[in-house]
Amino acid sequence: MAFTHKHLLGIQNLTVSEITTVLDTAESFYEISTREVKKVPTLIGKTIINLFFEPSTRTRSSFELAAKRLSADIVNFNLNASSAAKGETFKDTILNLEAMNPDAIIIRHSCSGASHYASTFSQSNIINAGDGSHEHPTQALLDAFTMRQEKKDFQNLKVVIVGDILHSRVARSNIFLLRKMGARITLVGPPSLLPEEFKKFGVEIDFNLDHAVKGADVIMMLRIQMERQTKNFFPSVREYRNLYSLSAQRFGRAKKNAIIMHPGPINRGVELTADMADCAKSVILKQVENGIAVRMAVLYLLLGGKDREAID
Amino acid sequence: MAFTHKHLLGIQNLTVSEITTVLDTAESFYEISTREVKKVPTLIGKTIINLFFEPSTRTRSSFELAAKRLSADIVNFNLNASSAAKGETFKDTILNLEAMNPDAIIIRHSCSGASHYASTFSQSNIINAGDGSHEHPTQALLDAFTMRQEKKDFQNLKVVIVGDILHSRVARSNIFLLRKMGARITLVGPPSLLPEEFKKFGVEIDFNLDHAVKGADVIMMLRIQMERQTKNFFPSVREYRNLYSLSAQRFGRAKKNAIIMHPGPINRGVELTADMADCAKSVILKQVENGIAVRMAVLYLLLGGKDREAID
Amino acid sequence: MAFTHKHLLGIQNLTVSEITTVLDTAESFYEISTREVKKVPTLIGKTIINLFFEPSTRTRSSFELAAKRLSADIVNFNLNASSAAKGETFKDTILNLEAMNPDAIIIRHSCSGASHYASTFSQSNIINAGDGSHEHPTQALLDAFTMRQEKKDFQNLKVVIVGDILHSRVARSNIFLLRKMGARITLVGPPSLLPEEFKKFGVEIDFNLDHAVKGADVIMMLRIQMERQTKNFFPSVREYRNLYSLSAQRFGRAKKNAIIMHPGPINRGVELTADMADCAKSVILKQVENGIAVRMAVLYLLLGGKDREAID
Repeated sequence: MAFTHKHLLGIQNLTVSEITTVLDTAESFYEISTREVKKVPTLIGKTIINLFFEPSTRTRSSFELAAKRLSADIVNFNLNASSAAKGETFKDTILNLEAMNPDAIIIRHSCSGASHYASTFSQSNIINAGDGSHEHPTQALLDAFTMRQEKKDFQNLKVVIVGDILHSRVARSNIFLLRKMGARITLVGPPSLLPEEFKKFGVEIDFNLDHAVKGADVIMMLRIQMERQTKNFFPSVREYRNLYSLSAQRFGRAKKNAIIMHPGPINRGVELTADMADCAKSVILKQVENGIAVRMAVLYLLLGGKDREAID
Repeated sequence: MAFTHKHLLGIQNLTVSEITTVLDTAESFYEISTREVKKVPTLIGKTIINLFFEPSTRTRSSFELAAKRLSADIVNFNLNASSAAKGETFKDTILNLEAMNPDAIIIRHSCSGASHYASTFSQSNIINAGDGSHEHPTQALLDAFTMRQEKKDFQNLKVVIVGDILHSRVARSNIFLLRKMGARITLVGPPSLLPEEFKKFGVEIDFNLDHAVKGADVIMMLRIQMERQTKNFFPSVREYRNLYSLSAQRFGRAKKNAIIMHPGPINRGVELTADMADCAKSVILKQVENGIAVRMAVLYLLLGGKDREAID
Repeated sequence: MAFTHKHLLGIQNLTVSEITTVLDTAESFYEISTREVKKVPTLIGKTIINLFFEPSTRTRSSFELAAKRLSADIVNFNLNASSAAKGETFKDTILNLEAMNPDAIIIRHSCSGASHYASTFSQSNIINAGDGSHEHPTQALLDAFTMRQEKKDFQNLKVVIVGDILHSRVARSNIFLLRKMGARITLVGPPSLLPEEFKKFGVEIDFNLDHAVKGADVIMMLRIQMERQTKNFFPSVREYRNLYSLSAQRFGRAKKNAIIMHPGPINRGVELTADMADCAKSVILKQVENGIAVRMAVLYLLLGGKDREAID
C-alpha cells in the first residue's frame, strides 16, 4: 500500500516498495480482463483525459481499455501540428482541459519533461505516457510485470537491451526500474546510438550482440524508427540487421530459458527475425496484455486510493 | 437458435436457417432503439474493437451504436497508410489487439480476405465490416431485414441490383444471401463493370436498365465511387446517368409496390434522381435504421450466445 | 421551468425567462463536476451525436464530457473536406444519422444557418455548436453564467466586446443574450472588422479601446484567427496588438472589479498580454469549467424534460 505519489512521471523517483506495490496491484487486476464480464465499478464517475501530442494507437488504446474496464469515463485528444498552429501554449492547453475537472490527464508528448512541467501547475493526476526520449514509466512497469511473471525475481537477472538506446524512453525507464530492483543490465547497440555516458546508470555497455547475449535471462529488443533514423545513425538497415538483429543463432547463446521482449510495434526482419518473434520464448504479446493490468493498477493507485482508504 | 459460427466473415457460408436466426434476432432488438431508454445490459463488460483500415463513418458508427446500446465497451481504431508505414504487418496488428483481450474485432480492410485471414489465427470473434470487393455481410443482412419488413417473403421476389457490380462487396453479399433465400436476381450495369462470370451465381445479367426493371419488386442501386472509377470503367458520369440512373420514368416500369434501396452514401443525380431518393417507395433510411438492429443481433449471437444458453 | 424549445439554434429566439431557466439549471448541475463521483444517471440510454464539420477539440469535448456526466451515450463524427468530397449532401448526412435514432445532434458547421436548416427536417433535438459567423448559443450561455457568477446581475452591466466582431458568432450570440438581459454593450475593433450595421442591435460602437474600456464591468476579448485573417482585415498583428490588445495599462481604466473573458483558445500577446490572461481578474478558465455545467443543462432541458415532468 506504499504508493503516495500524486503523479506518475517516471520511474526515476519511485522506490522499490512503490514499484512492488504497482506490480502487486496489477496482479490483482490482471484477472479482470480474462473474465466473461471484464469490468469493475472501481472508478465509476472519474474522468480521464488521454492527451496525445504524438500519434499512438497502442498506448492510447491500452489506457483507454484500462479506464473503461474500471468504469471510468475517458475522452481522447489527439493534438497535432495543426492544433499547435492555432497558437495555444502547452500550458494553456493543460489548464483548459483541467478546467473541465478531469481526475487524471495522461500525456504523451515529443518533448522530454512535458509531463513533469504539467505536474508543476496541474491539480489533476498526471500520468506520463512517454515524453520525448526521457521516460515511459508504464512501459517499464509492464515490462517488469512480465519479467516477474516469467522469472519470479529480479535479483541478478541478466537483462540485455538492444538497439537505439540513445533515443529510447523505453530503455531509460527500464534501466531505472531494473537497477532499482537489482537486475544486471547490458546495453547493446551501434556506438552512434549508445553513448558511453549511460555507464553512469550502473550498466554494462557492449557493442557486440553475439558477446553480450551470453548468459542473458531477458533480451529486450528496442524498436528501430525506420522512418527517421536509418539515414543518420547507422549506414543501412542491412548492416544494422547483420550486427544487431536477434536471430535463432544469437538467441542460442543466451540462457536456455531466456525470454525475448519488444515494446512493439515490431519490424520483422529488422530488430529480430520472424521466427524469434513468434517462438515460444517470445513474450511480446504478453507484454501487451500485461499493459492493461499495469495501467489499471496505475489509474487505481492514483485515482482510487483515497476512496479505498476511506473504505478500508 | 441455429447460429453456431464463431465469426461472421461472409454470407457465403451461412445457411438459410442461420440467416433467418439473425433476422429474427434483429427483429427482437429493433424496438430497443425506439425506446426512451435505448440501452440494455446484455453485453456489459464485453470489449469490442472497431478496426477500420478504410475510412468509414457510417458502418463504423452503426457498429459503435449497436455496441453501446448493448452496454458493451467499444474502442475505435482508424488505421491508415501512415500507420501501415510504421512497418507492422496486418497479422501483428491483429495479434497485438487480441492481446488486450477483446471479445470481438470488427474489421474493415481494402484487401479481400482480410477478415478471413484474421479468423485463422484469432481467438476473438471476427466480424467482417467489408473486405475489398469480396463481402460485406452485415450490409446484406440489413438489406434482407429491410426487404422482409417490406415484402414479407423472399420467394420469387425479383431483385434488380444496378451499378458497379464488379467492385461491389455489397452486391456480392446480397447475391449470396438472396439466392439462398429464393429470390431472383438481375444484375445491371455497364459491361465493363458487369462480367459475364457473375452468371455462375445463378443470376440474370442485363445491360439495359429499362428492360431489367420490368416487374421488379426491389431495385437496389449501388454507389458509384465517383472519386476513383469514373475515368476507367465508363466514359462519363453523364453517360452513366443516362443509361443507369433510376428516374421516375424507369421506376414506373417496376411493380407498383416496388421499393428502392441504396447502401449509401447516395450521389443524388447519379445513381438515382433526387425525387426517387426522397419518394415514399425509397427505403434507404430504413436500411440505415435497420443496420443497428442487425448489428446488435450479430454482436449478440456471436458474443452473448454462451451466456444465453447458460441461462436458458 | 419555462423551456419548451425542441432545439437550441441560437439566442435570438430565446426569452429572458428561458435564458434564466438554462442558467438556473446549469447552477444545479455545476456541483456534479466537483464531486468524487462526477456522474448522474439522468440521461442513461439517450444517444447523442457530436457532428463537427469544423475541427474543434474544446467545444466537442465539453459536450462529450457533459453527455458522459449525465450517463448518455455519445458518438463523435468529425467530417472534413474529404468526407464532403464523397458527394453526400448535408441534408442526407443528417437524415442518415437520424435514421440511427439519436436523441440529439450537436452540429458545428462553417455555414451560417446549418443547424437551423437541420431543424426544419430533423426529428432529433438539434443543438447549434457554432454555425459560420451566425450564432454559438452555448458559448453565450456559459459566458452569461460566468458573468452572473461574478456580477450577480446583468442590469446596467457594461460589457465591452473587443476584436473581430464581423466574423464572430461568439460576439453575435453574446450581443443577443446580453441585450435581452439588460446589459449595456460596447463593441470595439478595427473598422474593417466592426461594421456600423451592428448598431441596430442596440449597442455602442467604438474604434478606440482606451476610450471604450472606461467604466467597463466585463471585458470580453475575441479570438483573432491568426491563420486566416491577418492578411485581409488589418495591416499586421503588431498594429492590431498596439491598438486592441488588453494590457494592464488599458485594464486599469476599467472598473476596479472588472473581469476579463475570452472564449479561447487565447493567443498570448495578441488579444491580451500574458499577465492579463493569468491575473486574478481573468475568468477565462472559469468559462471553460462553466461550459460543462451549461451544456449539461442544455442537454437535460432538451432531452430529459419529459421524463422530469413525468417524475415531478
